[in-house]
Amino acid sequence: MKIGIIGAGQLGRMLALAGYPLGLRFVFVDQSEDAPGAQVGRIICGAFDDETKLAQLADEVDVITFDVENVPVEAVRGIAARKAFLPPVSALGASQDRLHEKTLFARLKIPTPPFAAVDTFDDLQKAAREIGVPGVLKTRRLGYDGRGQRLIRKMSDLDEAWQTLGSVPLIYEGFVDFSREVSLIGVRSTTGETRFYPLSANTHEGGILRYSVAPYRNAPLQKQAEQYLKRLFKHFDYAGVLTVEFFVKRGRLIANEMAPRVHNSGHWTIEGAHTSQFENHIRAILGLPLGSTSPIGHSAMVNFIGELPTLRNILRIPGVHFHSYGKEPRPNRKLGHCTVVAASAGARDRALRQLLRLKSA
Amino acid sequence: MKIGIIGAGQLGRMLALAGYPLGLRFVFVDQSEDAPGAQVGRIICGAFDDETKLAQLADEVDVITFDVENVPVEAVRGIAARKAFLPPVSALGASQDRLHEKTLFARLKIPTPPFAAVDTFDDLQKAAREIGVPGVLKTRRLGYDGRGQRLIRKMSDLDEAWQTLGSVPLIYEGFVDFSREVSLIGVRSTTGETRFYPLSANTHEGGILRYSVAPYRNAPLQKQAEQYLKRLFKHFDYAGVLTVEFFVKRGRLIANEMAPRVHNSGHWTIEGAHTSQFENHIRAILGLPLGSTSPIGHSAMVNFIGELPTLRNILRIPGVHFHSYGKEPRPNRKLGHCTVVAASAGARDRALRQLLRLKSA
Repeated sequence: MKIGIIGAGQLGRMLALAGYPLGLRFVFVDQSEDAPGAQVGRIICGAFDDETKLAQLADEVDVITFDVENVPVEAVRGIAARKAFLPPVSALGASQDRLHEKTLFARLKIPTPPFAAVDTFDDLQKAAREIGVPGVLKTRRLGYDGRGQRLIRKMSDLDEAWQTLGSVPLIYEGFVDFSREVSLIGVRSTTGETRFYPLSANTHEGGILRYSVAPYRNAPLQKQAEQYLKRLFKHFDYAGVLTVEFFVKRGRLIANEMAPRVHNSGHWTIEGAHTSQFENHIRAILGLPLGSTSPIGHSAMVNFIGELPTLRNILRIPGVHFHSYGKEPRPNRKLGHCTVVAASAGARDRALRQLLRLKSA
Repeated sequence: MKIGIIGAGQLGRMLALAGYPLGLRFVFVDQSEDAPGAQVGRIICGAFDDETKLAQLADEVDVITFDVENVPVEAVRGIAARKAFLPPVSALGASQDRLHEKTLFARLKIPTPPFAAVDTFDDLQKAAREIGVPGVLKTRRLGYDGRGQRLIRKMSDLDEAWQTLGSVPLIYEGFVDFSREVSLIGVRSTTGETRFYPLSANTHEGGILRYSVAPYRNAPLQKQAEQYLKRLFKHFDYAGVLTVEFFVKRGRLIANEMAPRVHNSGHWTIEGAHTSQFENHIRAILGLPLGSTSPIGHSAMVNFIGELPTLRNILRIPGVHFHSYGKEPRPNRKLGHCTVVAASAGARDRALRQLLRLKSA
């Protein structure tokens, strides 16, 4: 069996590394011969909207998946009509537009911050008045890792935010004064079999995930989050891994965004769960039995952003598992991560502090 | 950093899969574009004694290692003189000839079965008389997975064994009526740092490893085996993973053979130890700090030989980890393995029985 992956970033790379032991083969479409995935599999060099290259991929493989959300829906409709394309194009499309995504959440009774579409400065003023400040003005499309966002603290911030972002369709969202950010990663097979990992608690810095700890044990929130994902699974007739990021405010979940793919906040599952999110994504899109999502211990995952510590300094920490993505260093670029799995939450937290020091060294 | 691997079999494949997360790159030399390693890395197609291809490999990489013993020592001396080549050529050479290997064991006071070189039928008769029957007549070179061996039960078996094997240099060994077969996998870094995995207990069928369970807990044997490997490490100024297979007879170890490489009886370490033999081999030859060799639980590893069960049937067993080597089925060919890690030896043994049934289905 051969799997085609649109996007050869670190997520595609880790999907291939998880799939090789199952005897599978991988082909990527992406722009660079030296992309993280291209270092571990064959690549067809081309843009995500290059329909000739996408068709070439489809001809070669049994199933197509993707490792990024910014795959143009129009460009993949053709191949999705003639080859298994999972997760479904409808989920990909919904995740690409914050307005559609939040509208869908609202329709499925998944709580969201208050939001409004913003196409004009008038819209923005109206939204900020009705929803209130503080709030966040975001581009509807192509935002990730905190890009394309402006925090609005007071009405007088609107002008500058509009100058910066106003050339594209926007969404204004009420600011959520959250106590914690968590994410739930679920997986549904084409057979309908469904499993959920335990929640992970995520800490961002400058809009980029800095570290996650899992399992974040909170039975009512776990149950609630699973119910929300089940609604999304059903809505899309989903297959593959689905991630939803939530704010926790006064013990309730408020959905921030969904990603129809494996997710940075689930990298701990490689060593910290019986089956990784990557292997389960592959099992799911192939209709194979899903693997156990149970945690093995208490995990912490720390991202390396902009620069990597030397390999020697990472590997001398007992119990650390390192994952480099084979990328050139660049500011704000995710270059790798490491995970520790400990027997107790206390030991995990001590190791986490050590890893966070390492990172800034 | 780029690592060159001579041989692109399953061991090379698993070395690369363990090394990619460290940000390393891999190039293989082997005969087939579709070898197990070639499916997950770049391959230079050529025979192991093709000095042009070996030189091309050496030009491209920082360190050279190998995944098979039958790499001709004469062919690699040139590249070993100008590039780090580890484990050392001397260890590779010793492992290729059962007579040299056993002579070295004896010199280092590592117990072996009684043995004698056999170059003529007279030698064979003399050896069988002096050492006694039963015994085993083996080719000195290129034997693996039970090939090139004949069991001698009585003196009248000598004729036929000689007819079958007598065209090449041979060794006659006293038959060891063992109670168990075990192996010890150790790893030594270029820095001198040394670690040992727990012993694994191995069960062969038809000369091919069928399954291993680990840890095989026996403190005196563990200590004894570690002492033997330390002598070999010192003798060769070794770097990388080294495996020695032992017979256990009346509570004592008798060395059967050494492999200067990762070993089938250590595949359980991928999921069953904190750091796999593959990652530790790579760390060792790069002079990086070694990872913990502690077991995570109780592991069993079962080989799939000649045929693979369907992926669906394997993956539906809870907790099983499957490793396909991407090979075409062929009788007596190792096509893949699976590992279970359980919380107790009892649970491990129950899972093992299930896996053994699966295999023969």
